[in-house]
Amino acid sequence: MSYKVLTPEEAAAIIENGENIGLSGFTAAGTPKAVTRALAQKAQAEHEAGRPFKVNLFTGASTNSHADGALAQADAIDSRTPYQSSPDLRKNLNSGKARYYDMHLSHISMYMRYGHVPSVKTAIVEVAEITDDGEMTLTTGAGNTPTYCELAERIIVEVNNYHPKELKGMHDLMLPLDPPDRQPIPLTAPAERIGSTTWKVDPAKVVGIVYTNEPNGVAPFKPSDPITDKIGENVAKFLEEELTAGRIPASFLPLQSGVGNIANAVLGALGRNKKIPSFQMYTEVIQDSVISLMKEGRCTFAAGCSLTVSDEKLAEMYQDLDFYKSKVILRPQEYSNNPEIVRRLGLICINTAIEVDLFGQVNSTHFFGKQMMNGIGGSGDFARNGYLTIFTCPSTAKGGAISSIVPMVSHHDHTEHDVDIIVTEYGVADLRGKCPRDRAEELITKCVHPDYQEKLRQYLALTPQGHTPHCLAKAYEMHTKFMETGDMRNADFSA
Amino acid sequence: MSYKVLTPEEAAAIIENGENIGLSGFTAAGTPKAVTRALAQKAQAEHEAGRPFKVNLFTGASTNSHADGALAQADAIDSRTPYQSSPDLRKNLNSGKARYYDMHLSHISMYMRYGHVPSVKTAIVEVAEITDDGEMTLTTGAGNTPTYCELAERIIVEVNNYHPKELKGMHDLMLPLDPPDRQPIPLTAPAERIGSTTWKVDPAKVVGIVYTNEPNGVAPFKPSDPITDKIGENVAKFLEEELTAGRIPASFLPLQSGVGNIANAVLGALGRNKKIPSFQMYTEVIQDSVISLMKEGRCTFAAGCSLTVSDEKLAEMYQDLDFYKSKVILRPQEYSNNPEIVRRLGLICINTAIEVDLFGQVNSTHFFGKQMMNGIGGSGDFARNGYLTIFTCPSTAKGGAISSIVPMVSHHDHTEHDVDIIVTEYGVADLRGKCPRDRAEELITKCVHPDYQEKLRQYLALTPQGHTPHCLAKAYEMHTKFMETGDMRNADFSA
Repeated sequence: MSYKVLTPEEAAAIIENGENIGLSGFTAAGTPKAVTRALAQKAQAEHEAGRPFKVNLFTGASTNSHADGALAQADAIDSRTPYQSSPDLRKNLNSGKARYYDMHLSHISMYMRYGHVPSVKTAIVEVAEITDDGEMTLTTGAGNTPTYCELAERIIVEVNNYHPKELKGMHDLMLPLDPPDRQPIPLTAPAERIGSTTWKVDPAKVVGIVYTNEPNGVAPFKPSDPITDKIGENVAKFLEEELTAGRIPASFLPLQSGVGNIANAVLGALGRNKKIPSFQMYTEVIQDSVISLMKEGRCTFAAGCSLTVSDEKLAEMYQDLDFYKSKVILRPQEYSNNPEIVRRLGLICINTAIEVDLFGQVNSTHFFGKQMMNGIGGSGDFARNGYLTIFTCPSTAKGGAISSIVPMVSHHDHTEHDVDIIVTEYGVADLRGKCPRDRAEELITKCVHPDYQEKLRQYLALTPQGHTPHCLAKAYEMHTKFMETGDMRNADFSA
Repeated sequence: MSYKVLTPEEAAAIIENGENIGLSGFTAAGTPKAVTRALAQKAQAEHEAGRPFKVNLFTGASTNSHADGALAQADAIDSRTPYQSSPDLRKNLNSGKARYYDMHLSHISMYMRYGHVPSVKTAIVEVAEITDDGEMTLTTGAGNTPTYCELAERIIVEVNNYHPKELKGMHDLMLPLDPPDRQPIPLTAPAERIGSTTWKVDPAKVVGIVYTNEPNGVAPFKPSDPITDKIGENVAKFLEEELTAGRIPASFLPLQSGVGNIANAVLGALGRNKKIPSFQMYTEVIQDSVISLMKEGRCTFAAGCSLTVSDEKLAEMYQDLDFYKSKVILRPQEYSNNPEIVRRLGLICINTAIEVDLFGQVNSTHFFGKQMMNGIGGSGDFARNGYLTIFTCPSTAKGGAISSIVPMVSHHDHTEHDVDIIVTEYGVADLRGKCPRDRAEELITKCVHPDYQEKLRQYLALTPQGHTPHCLAKAYEMHTKFMETGDMRNADFSA
């Protein structure tokens, strides 16, 4: 092997204050670990020595605690894009210590190539293998690796021996030409291949290799509970009815599913409902429940951007890698989330909302209009372009003191134009073709918790006039009353 | 000619109460006139006789006064989608008399084929010519004509002899297969042709033909004024700088431009700025200024969904039709506004905002959160997917009593994730890559009217914490103070 072998500390020493760094991977899957951890230590040492040290961090999506977590704890992140979910980084960006640009995940790599966001100087890439001529087998997340490697002046490679070299064959990697030369993406089914199984970089750009051996560190999701189970059943029943009505083709359509407990419960319910045919997925994150459904034959193929499964589940997959290599493809997020493909394949898109309003607008990112939770992620790439767009949420939070359905969402990530169906544990609101007043009635009747139905009808009665019967002076009464009193039920909508 | 010739009244008599009707055209261009006018008269007669009569109206976009206008005056519209701009219909939908579903214009035809919105029973189609075997040459707007003709049980054809049969050749018409069979759209440049010049329908579905001879009735836009001229110059100068910086390819990229006075001023300014190369357009509506730029050689090709030019300009084009047929293509809105194409071609998208907020969210549809103006139209199809997304607006309205830049927009149509650049007569705010705080500062410094700069800084100071420093209790203070006192400058942001 002709590359220079470095310790993580030697690799971190290369990186300068103020540098733009691009990481491989997507979520904890495929994100480098050792160099970012060493970089956080370097930042801490620099700060202790009275010298400034911060970097601008570009990733696929969220990372692991060794990247966002460690770097945020060391206050080593100046600006950050396109997504995060780290408790430490969240604290920093909500306090103004770090600057966060929350983007659609299909946009970041082209925005960087176009020059809309600064280019990366250094790419840090986790691989299962790199050949002498620069051919890299990525690990479990594709992310923006091709773009970051292409644009970076130098590449630091983490060869993580935890992952078998036999992962080669699971990826389908490519970069589009940019306008005015871009061509149609010739993909018409999740399982087709249009790229290469490895990503080749100029070996001269590889400034060093760090050897590691550690798992992604993905914990299993919490088990489902009666509320998430009921949401899952409601989604499955709704899709079954759509099939029966002929509004979904009899062969079904590929699914996109968000991440988390509710998504796991939804996938579980779809798996159990045998009136729904076995299905394929074209999604962003492939999580534990998908793998379980594959073993049962309910999910026949999954194309995504990352294999964000628990360490336990990944170990299980590595025991039977040939089987899973015939059932899983990982593509860069510019392709897994591409509007062209989402619309062409006709995805059924199921994502989770933080809150929803009476007119079908969805908040996916902020608490009370100001505190960033994670980011919009890929939900906008899918919701705008899907065959059918569903958002799910429990009807209440904080023991009932918060209604997830409010007069006006406190942050708008998905507008009324992008949302077809809302599902809570109480039922399914079908917003398709309905004017705002009819949407409000549908949501109150089908989805709102009984404690809030009367309250929300009172809000609507405040301003009988207008296409959208909003009363701006009271639009955030439920939110402000919660902030003042700890309970949205104290909202006062008397005229 | 083997079709039955009908009077408009005879054609209107076919249509029943409660029917779903699909109209050809897009804006006043290509929209039928005589049958809808007669239908409004029929509705009025029915109402006078004490019988209910309303229809559900599906169109390409806005129409002419003979469709939305006449039918709304007769209170003959129950539900309406996907767009309108009629003063009479606006009154009805804001008062709750009519139900309006405001959609992305690229979505409606596929949503109807999928079954998400009801299918049309009758299509009314304006043509320049129809042959005995059902081959129709459309007039000046393509709209959703192929889908409506395909789904309708019966078709009423208005042969409008005002338009020459020689329009044949200006259209490029097609229908996609639906998922799971949809294929890539093989279009890689605005001027390529992928469809047919006419649309063929089953002659047996044509229940009758009505002969007409009348212009579209499109009035010229108001001339530009110093404010719109300055906005246009700011856009042109910004694009010139982006070219110089290499962030736009030297050959430039196709333009999409919204409709109206500001759009006309922007196109005029781009035409005058000779540092910007001659350009092509891939847009929704082709308006007067585009035709002027074609004559000057500044616009070399325009692909769109409608030729919404003034009657005077259209007469001028018909004098030189061969020239314009080599420079103009009209496609169905499912193609003119298609995200796949918008992203592939890398459009520079320039649309107009009603209001913008400190964090880059855009309101395109509502006044004070409740009164619908027109609708989102195609702005979302383009803004989300463009190479570069620009929104323009004058910094103030109502003689300065309204600031177009507010703490929070009163309706969200384009989220922060979809907006790159804001331009007012004061300057250009570049929001790319910036966190919400930095976006707010950029907007206040570059775009906000001096009367409101201090006011908006006071708002930001109310809640120093949070990724997005909103104070929900005061987010609509400027709006509510305007409603109470007639001037946003009376907003009180003292802590």
